[in-house]
Amino acid sequence: MNQLNQSFSVRFTYSISFTDGLFDSHNTLLADFLAAQSTEALRKKLLFVIDAGVLAHFPDLGDQIRDYFAGQTNVELVDDLVTVPGGEPAKNDPALVERIIDAVDRYGIDRHSYVVGVGGGSVLDLVGYAAAIAHRGIRHIRIPTTVLSQNDSGIGVKNGVNYRGKKNFLGTFAPPVAVFNDYRFLRTLDERDWRSGMAEAVKVALIKDAPFFDWIEANALALANRNEAAMQYLVYRCAELHMNHIAGGDPFEQGSSRPLDFGHWSAHKLEQLTGFSLRHGEAVAIGMALDCQYAHLLGYLSDEDLNRVLAVLETLGFALYDPALDQDDSAGVLRGLGEFREHLGGRLTILLLRGIGYGEEVNEMDETLLRQAIHLLANRQPTLALD
Amino acid sequence: MNQLNQSFSVRFTYSISFTDGLFDSHNTLLADFLAAQSTEALRKKLLFVIDAGVLAHFPDLGDQIRDYFAGQTNVELVDDLVTVPGGEPAKNDPALVERIIDAVDRYGIDRHSYVVGVGGGSVLDLVGYAAAIAHRGIRHIRIPTTVLSQNDSGIGVKNGVNYRGKKNFLGTFAPPVAVFNDYRFLRTLDERDWRSGMAEAVKVALIKDAPFFDWIEANALALANRNEAAMQYLVYRCAELHMNHIAGGDPFEQGSSRPLDFGHWSAHKLEQLTGFSLRHGEAVAIGMALDCQYAHLLGYLSDEDLNRVLAVLETLGFALYDPALDQDDSAGVLRGLGEFREHLGGRLTILLLRGIGYGEEVNEMDETLLRQAIHLLANRQPTLALD
Ligand SMILES: NC(=O)c1ccc[n+]([C@@H]2O[C@H](COP(=O)([O-])OP(=O)(O)OC[C@H]3O[C@@H](n4cnc5c(N)ncnc54)[C@H](O)[C@@H]3O)[C@@H](O)[C@H]2O)c1
Ligand SMILES: NC(=O)c1ccc[n+]([C@@H]2O[C@H](COP(=O)([O-])OP(=O)(O)OC[C@H]3O[C@@H](n4cnc5c(N)ncnc54)[C@H](O)[C@@H]3O)[C@@H](O)[C@H]2O)c1
Ligand SMILES: [Zn+2]
Ligand SMILES: [Zn+2]
Repeated sequence: MNQLNQSFSVRFTYSISFTDGLFDSHNTLLADFLAAQSTEALRKKLLFVIDAGVLAHFPDLGDQIRDYFAGQTNVELVDDLVTVPGGEPAKNDPALVERIIDAVDRYGIDRHSYVVGVGGGSVLDLVGYAAAIAHRGIRHIRIPTTVLSQNDSGIGVKNGVNYRGKKNFLGTFAPPVAVFNDYRFLRTLDERDWRSGMAEAVKVALIKDAPFFDWIEANALALANRNEAAMQYLVYRCAELHMNHIAGGDPFEQGSSRPLDFGHWSAHKLEQLTGFSLRHGEAVAIGMALDCQYAHLLGYLSDEDLNRVLAVLETLGFALYDPALDQDDSAGVLRGLGEFREHLGGRLTILLLRGIGYGEEVNEMDETLLRQAIHLLANRQPTLALD
Repeated sequence: MNQLNQSFSVRFTYSISFTDGLFDSHNTLLADFLAAQSTEALRKKLLFVIDAGVLAHFPDLGDQIRDYFAGQTNVELVDDLVTVPGGEPAKNDPALVERIIDAVDRYGIDRHSYVVGVGGGSVLDLVGYAAAIAHRGIRHIRIPTTVLSQNDSGIGVKNGVNYRGKKNFLGTFAPPVAVFNDYRFLRTLDERDWRSGMAEAVKVALIKDAPFFDWIEANALALANRNEAAMQYLVYRCAELHMNHIAGGDPFEQGSSRPLDFGHWSAHKLEQLTGFSLRHGEAVAIGMALDCQYAHLLGYLSDEDLNRVLAVLETLGFALYDPALDQDDSAGVLRGLGEFREHLGGRLTILLLRGIGYGEEVNEMDETLLRQAIHLLANRQPTLALD
């Protein structure tokens, strides 16, 4: 009578659907999903929260959504479509969490209803967070509208907002009940958002799937030139690899291994040093270049593999160097190493590539070699992409 | 290439330890737990958040905790012990969530560190919530100090705070990494807090375990008279039944069946109608009495069983009627039925007892019979408890 032991598992399932024109009147994907979920003759409510940056390019989206649900009997769209600013500002303003929570309250959205987020990774992180904490978790549907959110951030299990300027300081692990990737949204992305999400595809290919890297290499120019078919495959395959990783590993990150953080220790620091003027993917591209250059100096990565990685990143249009890499040590990117170590709980674990498609974890990095790697990137002659 | 399906399970394990004097210098329970969890030569940080109502009765607790950890090498107590008001006010003030989050930030508490909550169910709900949203979930240890929190709220997987006066409007499902039930704390509870937590033990006995009800019945007078050995067994057995229920069922309440809500539809409403001057357990006692009286009118429950239930509740010291039960219908307890239906997503499910230890779900309640049941409770002659 002095100890009880508890142990249980919680199962999570969701699907990611890929489509073009989710709210077209003839597209029944979303309606079918909702119909399949509905239990009785009970109308479930839907609360939409939409990225203002998306609405700017799709001014009819609100009407389209209203029309789409007008004829449906088993779901009820609440009166408002809530709009929030897009991009990182979505995650910086606590009043936006409250705006969503207040809508949940006002419209009586309960655990049988849905909160639907439409937008980039930032808006989805915000909406996912608000949905996760309201009533201990309302069913949440994600409709990601950027490359990054369709192939990475929007399909996973994390959400988060910033707190007093600290990135993702508040958040939870809370899987959505469904994700709908609508390729139509990708057409209006600006160059940088089209490109930067591809960094995560390169990353996951490099650490897990050499044939996917070969494919990206063969299609790099097409991707850079906004070939839609190529982008659709990239998004699909990258999403698939991420999902397999989540399911096969440690979905709620209870342990401390984080292989998907390849290239990220310096990327996080670069984003911060540049005041987030670098997009996450842009910083990750530089971070991967740095760690590959370093792995090459260490004798881990061959000349050929190094050159392939750097050339693919350049062909996709990424810069491989940013002056912030070179700031003096006390405030510079090397400090990111110490912060990453602390973040991991005191023991540094960095994945370095040994070849395309596989890596090896190391527990320290040599600062002299790292400086040399930075120097090489600073003085590199970019690959010429031939159109 | 138009759908991917995700499916994974996340395992949660934790233990509940029972002790008397957790922070006595010779008591190694907590130190042993922390030592077993520590991976490397790495000092993990501990942030304590303590119920001011507990500190009022244990003014040396802070010093005791500091002394306890002074000699320990693998954990590091951060400089502050955070104090928060006890009782429902802990859950009503958003500034308290921030106070904990800010301490997490200031002391660099990360996902490898611990947030330890010491207090009643209210403080544990607050601390558990803050720990769950900081860094997407910091390891959380609970040290419940009331009967209710030791046998029910503190050993489960839920947390929550109130939002604009709405009870538990914000919260998550987030299991602790460990619970330490220290019986010493129970000695200083006032009469009402000693008693009210026992309502949940009666509840779980009534719906799941007739022999436990027999035991409560046999020990009701001892329990009412603050016999410690009896209370310790009650807490232990009730905790065990709750844990089995959680593990065997639907821990994160993804479905809609909620058998542990026996007696709760009217209890929630009564708490609200009385402006929370009724304790949760006091309201649950009335709610169970009402539903048993109703089940008896319906022919579900025998005379003998009804009388046993009501007599046990009265012997424990519970009132079985409150004037709020009788308020006019528009605002009264019967409205709780509609709200509970809505809360369940449109379909009412109420557990009614068919006998001691087992119930049956019904999907409607007859208002005339309910009024009759209320009338019977209002005019009941209480059982005389013979000392
Ligand atoms: N939760 C996770 O697991 C995870 C993983 C990686 C990154 N993230 C987060 O994702 C965020 C970045 O997301 P992002 O890269 O999708 O960018 P974003 O959400 O910050 O959006 C960038 C800009 O694009 C606009 N936009 C969105 N969709 C558009 C469209 N279809 N057409 C035109 N403009 C559009 C937005 O309004 C915004 O101005 C970061 O906050 C990052 O922390 C989260
Ligand atoms: N999370 C869950 O699953 C769950 C389940 C049921 C109830 N709850 C919540 O629990 C809360 C009620 O908790 P409770 O009944 O433990 O009461 P409480 O936490 O509200 O505390 C009642 C009073 O007792 C004081 N107190 C605490 N420990 C004491 C001690 N050892 N000696 C003297 N005084 C002490 C407190 O300071 C407070 O003034 C409610 O908010 C309810 O919603 C949560
Ligand atoms: Zn990333
Ligand atoms: Zn209860």
